[in-house]
Amino acid sequence: MELFAVEGIPEIRPDDNIGELIAERVSLRDDDVVVVASTIVSKAEDRRASLEAYDPGPRAREIANRIGAISGEEKDPRLAQAVLEESTEVLIETPFLLSETHCGHVGVNAGIDRSNTGDAEILLLPRRPSASAAVIRQSLPDRNPVIVTDTCGRPFRHGQVGVALGWDGMGASRDWRGMEDRDGHELAVTVESIVDELAAAANVVSGEGADGTPVIVARDVPLAGFETSDALFRDVRTDFVRQALRDWDYPREPPVE
Amino acid sequence: MELFAVEGIPEIRPDDNIGELIAERVSLRDDDVVVVASTIVSKAEDRRASLEAYDPGPRAREIANRIGAISGEEKDPRLAQAVLEESTEVLIETPFLLSETHCGHVGVNAGIDRSNTGDAEILLLPRRPSASAAVIRQSLPDRNPVIVTDTCGRPFRHGQVGVALGWDGMGASRDWRGMEDRDGHELAVTVESIVDELAAAANVVSGEGADGTPVIVARDVPLAGFETSDALFRDVRTDFVRQALRDWDYPREPPVE
Repeated sequence: MELFAVEGIPEIRPDDNIGELIAERVSLRDDDVVVVASTIVSKAEDRRASLEAYDPGPRAREIANRIGAISGEEKDPRLAQAVLEESTEVLIETPFLLSETHCGHVGVNAGIDRSNTGDAEILLLPRRPSASAAVIRQSLPDRNPVIVTDTCGRPFRHGQVGVALGWDGMGASRDWRGMEDRDGHELAVTVESIVDELAAAANVVSGEGADGTPVIVARDVPLAGFETSDALFRDVRTDFVRQALRDWDYPREPPVE
Repeated sequence: MELFAVEGIPEIRPDDNIGELIAERVSLRDDDVVVVASTIVSKAEDRRASLEAYDPGPRAREIANRIGAISGEEKDPRLAQAVLEESTEVLIETPFLLSETHCGHVGVNAGIDRSNTGDAEILLLPRRPSASAAVIRQSLPDRNPVIVTDTCGRPFRHGQVGVALGWDGMGASRDWRGMEDRDGHELAVTVESIVDELAAAANVVSGEGADGTPVIVARDVPLAGFETSDALFRDVRTDFVRQALRDWDYPREPPVE
């Protein structure tokens, strides 16, 4: 498998056709998967917004006050309001906002980006990233699979990694259920989230900041020979961490090591 | 960046020199990172064990009983005992065991593997995976960086992905702190867990089961041009999910959607 950046993607404006811009710059092959950073998808979908457009309600003001009191820095209640409007459920309110967005993705500040947004003050995630992936795919001559990605932190482990927000033309996971290992035992790993793994791989190549490249091609991806499943975001009934977070409050005293 | 499997790695036995076996089969270049599945490291380090060697204490029996009652399947208290002995802290006891292992990694059943273990009944994770990576690296002629990996589920998202357990010869993260985007804003993403991203990328190529290849080379990895940091596993003080799980109990009633 090879991963390389599509060079020369211009600064994206509202209504730009990202699929066409990609197709003009690279000859895609079978088994190529196109990995697109959600920032440029958001720009094409005009998901820039100004904080001035948000009128913070009582809950947003309370959240901003509490986070501000803990961090010692003033927090903008309009950003808290924007996060609430982009969210279906808030999982952590303090010391930062972690929430589920409309597409099912869980991220800090509902994935709202304050960097790389040009003149606008904030950039919201695409509202339906899998639909966005489908739109991009329709403009690729051979309808290669498309993944729309973000970078995201996670519990237990430091640092952020690339993750998939939406996808089209491939399954979210490779499903190994029922397969056996060399000794004839049923496999312990049964569902592998290949869209997240490809998003992570692409993030190694794309870099960040001024030199970042928002479109990566993953070539010779092993996409055949197994079943796929299309669920990426957990249901709260099987997500015990989400259940635990519903009951949790930021402690007044730091926890014991 | 390119990722390919090292073909012809034999079934690993205790005291096999994995680094030599790799060096005999592939000519590594600068900027190659060698990604090794922990299963073969465990085999080389003779981390196979038999459940018969475990004498379950009261806590292991209680855990096995409770998980068994919920799942409707009999659970082996000896496996629960093995998990407890491999763990420094248990985060979830029911409906499955999630714990922190001695190296800091959080995984179900302390990462104990019941598949692909040949005659032994269970395979424990390497006890010090970064030390294991260092040992492998010492047998590579040009001392390429080495990552030791496992596959692991995660909160919020379905499916498993490749993750790093240990690493040597490179930083765990690329640190973008202080860098700016094209518009001069400071970057939102500041620490990128490159060892986890490479582990995920390698897992796309390696596959699972009888056809799985345990050693992957990542070639032309962008390893220069940024600071690195070497922490991968979160401290409980900054890990609010861990704090929440300490207070959580498996509910008698399923949660509301």
